[in-house]
Amino acid sequence: MQPVIGIIGGLGQMGRWFRRFFESQGLTVLIGEPGINPTCAEVAAQVDIVVISVPLHLTEAVIRELAPHIRPEALLTDLTSLKQGPMAAMLDHFAGEVVGTHPLFGPGEKSLEGQTIVVCPGRGDRWVPWLEDLYRQAGARLEVSTPEEHDRTMSLVQGLTHFTLITLGTTFRKLNADIDRMELLATPTFRAVYDQVYHLVNQNFPLYAYIQLMNRQNEATHAAFEEAVRQLRQIVLARDADALVQVLEENQRYFEKWKQPSS
Amino acid sequence: MQPVIGIIGGLGQMGRWFRRFFESQGLTVLIGEPGINPTCAEVAAQVDIVVISVPLHLTEAVIRELAPHIRPEALLTDLTSLKQGPMAAMLDHFAGEVVGTHPLFGPGEKSLEGQTIVVCPGRGDRWVPWLEDLYRQAGARLEVSTPEEHDRTMSLVQGLTHFTLITLGTTFRKLNADIDRMELLATPTFRAVYDQVYHLVNQNFPLYAYIQLMNRQNEATHAAFEEAVRQLRQIVLARDADALVQVLEENQRYFEKWKQPSS
Repeated sequence: MQPVIGIIGGLGQMGRWFRRFFESQGLTVLIGEPGINPTCAEVAAQVDIVVISVPLHLTEAVIRELAPHIRPEALLTDLTSLKQGPMAAMLDHFAGEVVGTHPLFGPGEKSLEGQTIVVCPGRGDRWVPWLEDLYRQAGARLEVSTPEEHDRTMSLVQGLTHFTLITLGTTFRKLNADIDRMELLATPTFRAVYDQVYHLVNQNFPLYAYIQLMNRQNEATHAAFEEAVRQLRQIVLARDADALVQVLEENQRYFEKWKQPSS
Repeated sequence: MQPVIGIIGGLGQMGRWFRRFFESQGLTVLIGEPGINPTCAEVAAQVDIVVISVPLHLTEAVIRELAPHIRPEALLTDLTSLKQGPMAAMLDHFAGEVVGTHPLFGPGEKSLEGQTIVVCPGRGDRWVPWLEDLYRQAGARLEVSTPEEHDRTMSLVQGLTHFTLITLGTTFRKLNADIDRMELLATPTFRAVYDQVYHLVNQNFPLYAYIQLMNRQNEATHAAFEEAVRQLRQIVLARDADALVQVLEENQRYFEKWKQPSS
């Protein structure tokens, strides 16, 4: 038997992306979206797999609200960028099958081929392995993680990276930088970083704001970054070449422990 | 008549790169390097075009030292990453032809095709236009700038970009980040930024250190960045979604004024 899929938040960008994906696999997909019929609760009550794809800051509330409506034999899963809160909400409020996922790609990707999906195991042995197989057979690489490890790693991968790109954007704005001129005098390193600054200023604001605000691990990550900025600035103000070379050498030794980037 | 070229610092990475380039154009190149024969002063005295390609922090001293040995009808030029100090030194200590250049690429590039060279006009109308034509005909794009405008723009293009990548590297080190795990859970944005962090930790240390220390404009640039980091961190600590969205919107409006990145 093929499951019927219900996507809650199915008119959002990732909701539409996964609707197209499931339909391309020959599956029936129902869409739930606040304010349209059938209601989200009605969709949740009719399907075999409920996929929560609502804005990050609403995810836990939507899970709490819909859980009582989901059929006991169904699977509850999500697509949220953080995993501790949503996983706890799914496991606490729903007694059936649960698996948390975080697709590490945006809605601009054509297919699952070569994409990574982080999977946080919950419970259940019918639809959970079925869904994991579906993703895997479509070419996705599944990375298993705990909610804690996922959020800790994402605090660096997304939290710190976005934080840096946002503050670079703010710095250009505050200095009233002539972007056209910088483009003409760009080095390859600047171009690679600037392209990401530019990409980020045009992204989904609530998502990128809540990735900063809702990951508690960001407090320690951002504190370490602010301290690194403060210290390096002091070194530069003091024109202390020895101290600066020492930082560069310590960083080089740290990164030598790891293999080269795969890209 | 084809000029004879002398490269001072000709055994360094960029010195070797430009030696290969000039020789590929059928030109004769002499190499000057401290401690080898002929001495730098002897090379400078024999050639039509003296190219200074020594470490950034030594450039002005080398110019002062060699200028008295250069033939009055020769051209003095440099390849230095900052332009105010070197240009002033060349114009003050040598009365003949002068042009400052900053090739915006590293020694890994195969050719001048499509590369940018910033040119700061000095004086002279024989070898200066000849050299500019040589670079242009080899496919380089020449961008004319004043030393002041060059160093101000480079404070953002190189100074701030490297500063950010160094502090990201320091943050990963201080947090003892598991780089292998971050690679497995990488998003496309993280990968693009991390590749540049990794690239930078393996670069020429004195150059990257002195690009931070010797550009006086970096003081204001780094101060603006530290302030942006401090402010965004306070917003995140206060969980102030409205303030964060306001920053993101102000940045978006700022970047809307400029055309899209060309890459």
